[in-house]
Amino acid sequence: MAQATFEEISASDFFYRNRDIAGFTNPSRAVFAAIRELVENSLDAAESLKIPPEIYVRLSFEGEVGKDTQIYKLRVGDNGSGIQPRFIPSAFGQILYGSKYKLKQMRGTFGLGGKMAVLYGQIMTHQPAKVTSSTGSTKIYSFKLMIDIQRNRPIILDRKVLVNKEQWRGTIVEFTLEGDYLRAKSKILEYFKQTAMVNPYANLTFVDPKGRLYKFTRVTTAMPDPPKETEPHPFGVDVELLQRLIQVTPYRNMLEFLKQHFHRVGDITAQKFLEFSHLSPSKNPKRLSHEEVVRLMQNLKKFKDFLPPDASCLSPLGEELLKAGILKELKPEYLVVNQRKPSTYAGHPFIIEMGIAYGGEIPKKGNFLIYRFANKIPLLYDEASDVSFRVINSLNWRRYKVSPDMPIAIVVHICSTKVPYKTVGKEFIADRPEVRREVANALREIGRQLHRFLSKREHVDREKRRLSIFAKYLPKIAQFSSHLAGKEKLPDVKKLIKSVQKYGEET
Amino acid sequence: MAQATFEEISASDFFYRNRDIAGFTNPSRAVFAAIRELVENSLDAAESLKIPPEIYVRLSFEGEVGKDTQIYKLRVGDNGSGIQPRFIPSAFGQILYGSKYKLKQMRGTFGLGGKMAVLYGQIMTHQPAKVTSSTGSTKIYSFKLMIDIQRNRPIILDRKVLVNKEQWRGTIVEFTLEGDYLRAKSKILEYFKQTAMVNPYANLTFVDPKGRLYKFTRVTTAMPDPPKETEPHPFGVDVELLQRLIQVTPYRNMLEFLKQHFHRVGDITAQKFLEFSHLSPSKNPKRLSHEEVVRLMQNLKKFKDFLPPDASCLSPLGEELLKAGILKELKPEYLVVNQRKPSTYAGHPFIIEMGIAYGGEIPKKGNFLIYRFANKIPLLYDEASDVSFRVINSLNWRRYKVSPDMPIAIVVHICSTKVPYKTVGKEFIADRPEVRREVANALREIGRQLHRFLSKREHVDREKRRLSIFAKYLPKIAQFSSHLAGKEKLPDVKKLIKSVQKYGEET
Repeated sequence: MAQATFEEISASDFFYRNRDIAGFTNPSRAVFAAIRELVENSLDAAESLKIPPEIYVRLSFEGEVGKDTQIYKLRVGDNGSGIQPRFIPSAFGQILYGSKYKLKQMRGTFGLGGKMAVLYGQIMTHQPAKVTSSTGSTKIYSFKLMIDIQRNRPIILDRKVLVNKEQWRGTIVEFTLEGDYLRAKSKILEYFKQTAMVNPYANLTFVDPKGRLYKFTRVTTAMPDPPKETEPHPFGVDVELLQRLIQVTPYRNMLEFLKQHFHRVGDITAQKFLEFSHLSPSKNPKRLSHEEVVRLMQNLKKFKDFLPPDASCLSPLGEELLKAGILKELKPEYLVVNQRKPSTYAGHPFIIEMGIAYGGEIPKKGNFLIYRFANKIPLLYDEASDVSFRVINSLNWRRYKVSPDMPIAIVVHICSTKVPYKTVGKEFIADRPEVRREVANALREIGRQLHRFLSKREHVDREKRRLSIFAKYLPKIAQFSSHLAGKEKLPDVKKLIKSVQKYGEET
Repeated sequence: MAQATFEEISASDFFYRNRDIAGFTNPSRAVFAAIRELVENSLDAAESLKIPPEIYVRLSFEGEVGKDTQIYKLRVGDNGSGIQPRFIPSAFGQILYGSKYKLKQMRGTFGLGGKMAVLYGQIMTHQPAKVTSSTGSTKIYSFKLMIDIQRNRPIILDRKVLVNKEQWRGTIVEFTLEGDYLRAKSKILEYFKQTAMVNPYANLTFVDPKGRLYKFTRVTTAMPDPPKETEPHPFGVDVELLQRLIQVTPYRNMLEFLKQHFHRVGDITAQKFLEFSHLSPSKNPKRLSHEEVVRLMQNLKKFKDFLPPDASCLSPLGEELLKAGILKELKPEYLVVNQRKPSTYAGHPFIIEMGIAYGGEIPKKGNFLIYRFANKIPLLYDEASDVSFRVINSLNWRRYKVSPDMPIAIVVHICSTKVPYKTVGKEFIADRPEVRREVANALREIGRQLHRFLSKREHVDREKRRLSIFAKYLPKIAQFSSHLAGKEKLPDVKKLIKSVQKYGEET
């Protein structure tokens, strides 16, 4: 009987064989995924310099493949930071190579999306990708690239250097791919619309294969502070991370080690923690045994007095912006938003922002409309697998006098230095217990407020009915009794009606 | 302003940073994922030798970590093929190294699951994994291993060679991990139950942390033929695959190239195809230009006369086994199963098998109960993202007089040389158009049969009501008229009732 034979494959080869897990499942999703991955890279590249993003996307028809599949050329250009020429080939032609492997709030987190798009284009059309970029220096670099999938290395087919007369800065990526734009269209437009909603400082332009122009114009040029890189928070670090820090640390005692490598650990906290875990402040971290490292990890999780993570490294939307976005897009009768305090999972700080909107132009659908965002990008697929969907649908809404057949929309935004996506295609958020708890707390908070609104409205409605009865009959009673009493002048019932009114005029 | 810095990370590092995408999201799912990944490796290892699998799983409590998290030791042993000693370290300590990168129906497809389990255990507990294996030779090899995550290489801490007196063959894996068994318990037991249902030739034993023994005993020792490795089918090959074949082929003309490297392409088909695509049969494939390769790929997709993929490389359950499994587990009143003809997506043959069960012990839940299987393993998470769920819920069931509040269970099994999972954690099947179509066709077929059954039952019910009226009143009429006519002996109404009966006694 034959024994199993073993082989090693490259990371490119892995994603080539398993493109489904990166979101490139069918021609419709592939064209959606390619656009969003490149747009998100462009938004990150502009935001890192605090420049209002200016992004131009063009999808043009190149030819038919089959009944439902066409070949398109995709071009995405931005005014972002640009990429230094020595990094360009690997940044687009080598999987698991990138600038995204940091503890910093970014849209991209896998360092994979742009390359997957290029890889997918190459697999289906066998055309090279063209990348043009400048960091604003005197030169513009232009590469023609393909990927050697089995070796996971870029192949440079052509390299040009141009003079940058106008001091242009940015990146333009262009390649061909198979897709089904007709089927993807509604999702792509929805993607741009929702992206514009949470990035109100960006100009987005999309030209579709029919030449139709969709323009999403910025409403402000005020940019949020770019998110900052941060150290891991002591809650939820694992042994691997501790060992990496021990390996690279220049500090020779535990006190400095803790203070320098962890988020929000100062002198006093570090000393308290070392006492708690019976470690000497002068102990050299490089001398910790395996067992001591494991115990250190467990103690970091158990110690109660660490400060919560500092949100300053995160760049949430903020309640005002969230409110404005929802009011503009959904035009509800009532809206309440809630930003939770920063929390942490596995050492990564995160913030949940949530809004619940009721009535107005929100349609009754028989279930809640849910809008999901993560690090300011909309998530449009696989809603039912998202932790928010689950929390929303497992809440006891009757407690809040709310039922799914009311016209209700719920908007959830998670921002984090590391969003716990379940798939490489960034479709939905994994069910991490810490995230679940924060989503549930935010939901209960806005649920309570909605409850108060609905209860008050119910009272007001009842009151209105009561008042309308008074308003209807009191004048008649007045008229009748005046007549009976033989009086000419009717008494003023307005005062009387006002005296039984429980709520002010504004209701 | 700082420029982006770029770095390369290893495949291990990628999955360490993104364990959510491999199913290791929280302590509950992690313990479930670890068990299933190792059980599935064991089933594959036994089936490859056509030996009835004998799998022993033990999860034992090692200590508390937090309120909801404990440390467990997991031990999974099998009587499978065993692993040759030179492959053991990389097979468990190197991501993207394995025996699963083949066109062959297997439970594992990413060559990732077992390693992810070990990697996760190491991250959380920092203990080495112990792997003991023998291929049935005179020796048993035992390794203590850890993974160098940054380099993606195994670290061998200890290696022992034992004399194999009893000619034992198999593999035992043992390591510690963090988990939440209490919360995972129901899913784990459901997993074993459903696995036993579709692997009726396997003995599965599970000992839980409380020492409770769960035994799933085989009902047959008849084993299906092990699935065979196969060549890619010409539909849906891509340029990358063509180029790899061209690179490695020993054949110097297109005729042989097509016949030897593609599934179900014989002499006549190959000649017809070459004529169709205006290629000379004697053309050397290594001389094809890039453009010719792209055209070849497009023609392979367009040519209508390729034979459908041969199911002999697949190992479906078969209608009988599927029926038996469903009847045993669900005890329905009515059951119909349907095995579709083999189809193909992206060059991979696949078969959809489906059953629909009605009534009996199936509960009314307000929605269809869906059981999903892929290559004989149950899929228990993220149902709503699965292509089957979507197809089932988008079908116009009213056409079949079926509504979701009837007691109905639907069982879907996909088997393929490559199951299009959406996540590395193998939770659900991607929405590939070819798969969607086959699922929809299978569903319509069994839907029609269920419809006939329900319509007939409705007729029968109506008929029964009609008959019961006759049965009730005819004797009274007979009695009354006999009395009226002054006769002693009542006429026999049984004959009369029988004459108005439309259906036989068995209804």
